[in-house]
Amino acid sequence: MKMCYFDHAATNPLHPEVLESMMPFFKEEFGNALSVYDLGMHAREAVEHARAEVAALINAKPGTIVFTSSGVEANNFALRGAAIARKQQGNHVIVSKAEHHSVLNSARFLEKQGFVVTYLPVDNHGLVAPDLLKKSIINETVLISITHASREIGTVEPIKELSAVAKERGVAFHTDAIASTGNIPVDVQDLGVDMLSMTGHQMYGPKGIGALYIREGTRIAPLIYGGIQEGGRRAGTENVAYVVGMGRAAQLAREEMNDRMEHVRKLRDRLVQGIAGIPNVYLTGHPENRLPNHASFVVEFIEGEAMLLMLAMKGIYTASGSACSSKALKSSPVLLSLGVPTALAQGSIVFTLGRGNTEEEVDFALAEFPQIVSKLRAMSPFANKGWDYGTKNDTCYVGG
Amino acid sequence: MKMCYFDHAATNPLHPEVLESMMPFFKEEFGNALSVYDLGMHAREAVEHARAEVAALINAKPGTIVFTSSGVEANNFALRGAAIARKQQGNHVIVSKAEHHSVLNSARFLEKQGFVVTYLPVDNHGLVAPDLLKKSIINETVLISITHASREIGTVEPIKELSAVAKERGVAFHTDAIASTGNIPVDVQDLGVDMLSMTGHQMYGPKGIGALYIREGTRIAPLIYGGIQEGGRRAGTENVAYVVGMGRAAQLAREEMNDRMEHVRKLRDRLVQGIAGIPNVYLTGHPENRLPNHASFVVEFIEGEAMLLMLAMKGIYTASGSACSSKALKSSPVLLSLGVPTALAQGSIVFTLGRGNTEEEVDFALAEFPQIVSKLRAMSPFANKGWDYGTKNDTCYVGG
Repeated sequence: MKMCYFDHAATNPLHPEVLESMMPFFKEEFGNALSVYDLGMHAREAVEHARAEVAALINAKPGTIVFTSSGVEANNFALRGAAIARKQQGNHVIVSKAEHHSVLNSARFLEKQGFVVTYLPVDNHGLVAPDLLKKSIINETVLISITHASREIGTVEPIKELSAVAKERGVAFHTDAIASTGNIPVDVQDLGVDMLSMTGHQMYGPKGIGALYIREGTRIAPLIYGGIQEGGRRAGTENVAYVVGMGRAAQLAREEMNDRMEHVRKLRDRLVQGIAGIPNVYLTGHPENRLPNHASFVVEFIEGEAMLLMLAMKGIYTASGSACSSKALKSSPVLLSLGVPTALAQGSIVFTLGRGNTEEEVDFALAEFPQIVSKLRAMSPFANKGWDYGTKNDTCYVGG
Repeated sequence: MKMCYFDHAATNPLHPEVLESMMPFFKEEFGNALSVYDLGMHAREAVEHARAEVAALINAKPGTIVFTSSGVEANNFALRGAAIARKQQGNHVIVSKAEHHSVLNSARFLEKQGFVVTYLPVDNHGLVAPDLLKKSIINETVLISITHASREIGTVEPIKELSAVAKERGVAFHTDAIASTGNIPVDVQDLGVDMLSMTGHQMYGPKGIGALYIREGTRIAPLIYGGIQEGGRRAGTENVAYVVGMGRAAQLAREEMNDRMEHVRKLRDRLVQGIAGIPNVYLTGHPENRLPNHASFVVEFIEGEAMLLMLAMKGIYTASGSACSSKALKSSPVLLSLGVPTALAQGSIVFTLGRGNTEEEVDFALAEFPQIVSKLRAMSPFANKGWDYGTKNDTCYVGG
């Protein structure tokens, strides 16, 4: 059975050239990057070369990049490190309701530490309004964190406008760019952010490496204490092979960015157009301001999990909600934040395309998906008599 | 030039079979371990298989193992997570003065959070006295952390006796077993610890993966918040390849433990015997209760860094102090905690042997090292007239 992998938001396959770049560091170049002899220096040089590549991808200076073990760790580091470093200055933090768990749960951790957190609502497309952000800033506000692009609904936030609001009030601004970095242009100067989280495995690098961009002069407390690695900002023996892999992945992403975007956008549009023909299926997230590889829907009268498993039986891999909560069997908080009713949010299905996908794969999915929807609806007690959402849902963009 | 790698305390080369076990997860088996389709389930099964192997190495149940990105992260997680989870119960923590930076700096973090930390002295060999520990426990004591084996001086602490003291008083006990796990038998039931940190790259696994053993029923707050990975105890997309690698490394360590120990002990004893012939060179750490691959010395009248670099020019790789502080150019706090005078502590040199080392390599080092010492002493202004340490040092075990 052919595999159609449409779950790039969960993780990407490793780019063969990334793996190739890592291999020497699993073999002869096994030195600790802190060792002073040549074996250590090779590792150090490789780490610094990779740091420069990651920096180049986001138009930053190499010294502003701190490697972490994941995007999630980068989010924890940014939120908690920046807030705690500003504790004397104020105790108010702003995040949006449509953030990833790692941001929301870091915010909840800060609440336990005495911070007050404002959870900004988003509109039907998942957008945060700069005006609303402006009104939410108080004198005690020390940190704002808004995701760059949503893994679940694909919406790309107006970060430039939002960070400008923060800057006007002298508030530190962080963006979770885990889903966007490597997939669309991310320029920290243009975005105007103070901190930006990213991860290797969203740009065809390995799982288990991430990075936090920290603008020069931005105060931040470490998350992991110990030795002097990463300029004292993140302790632990450096994962040289993965750092190198993320560097190579960043370089490839920069070089191939336009081609990759064009490739996935074409496939995505074909997919959305095809699925739009199915009745009672709605595109979630913003119709235009979205990741080019991202097509997310809610399907009435059906459980997302059931669709996902039936698609998987055909070799078509998709997601329902985010991977980090896929086994939690709860409605996606992101979908709920858009105003999608709980029952409908259960019918979430997300296709995220990648550089290896083909038109044939999309056509195969378009042939199979409507049949699966029909089959499941035939089993659903709600499909014929309708599903009582309370008020009729008009919060989702209707595909087609 | 042949390489004689005697710096296994800094990092180990990857075991070829470990690399082999990881390769499928860099290629076709690239799924996210939380994805519900088969690609995700393969990753999940591999992670759980590895968890069982790591657990078996330390005689624990699989569910008590939480994977982290490093031993350092495991130490931060244990110290801070366990202390913070007991904040209502008491605010006193005990660590030894000879702990790794990741423990000491986590303790300092806790001091900023309102905890009071007792830094227990160690004897001339680096040992913590169970009696002294007993006297240091007060009603407010909630956590004790004593390293199992020192990376720098090789000393193995009497953890079983120390944890018994803690247990008697109902205090949680953590041990940093990063340098010992995989190298000597580590049995959490026999040691009687509540938490135990370990790392992959000290057992010929990859750098960038560690684990914390958490005895059932032990309360601990997460260090990294986000999704539901690792039973909600450590968020972030699982580094499947490295988890698998650590599992395989643990399995190999268990199977080959006795052979490996015998191999390195023989080489180590040969090395110590040879170096003992050099005048004014002292073995640091305990003469018997030490890691079998570990030979550490202080050399009078010479800077450790200079020895290290001259040895490296001959292809002999060693350390001076711990890798995590090798570029900090400070005297090792561990050596100072033994009572080694500051100037003498600068002359630290550490040989740590591994499964790949040979008798020929040891003999080569034994031929080169005395010459290097002579050469450096000839340049030293202190070598002939002596070095004023204040009181004469009798704190070190005199080799030979």
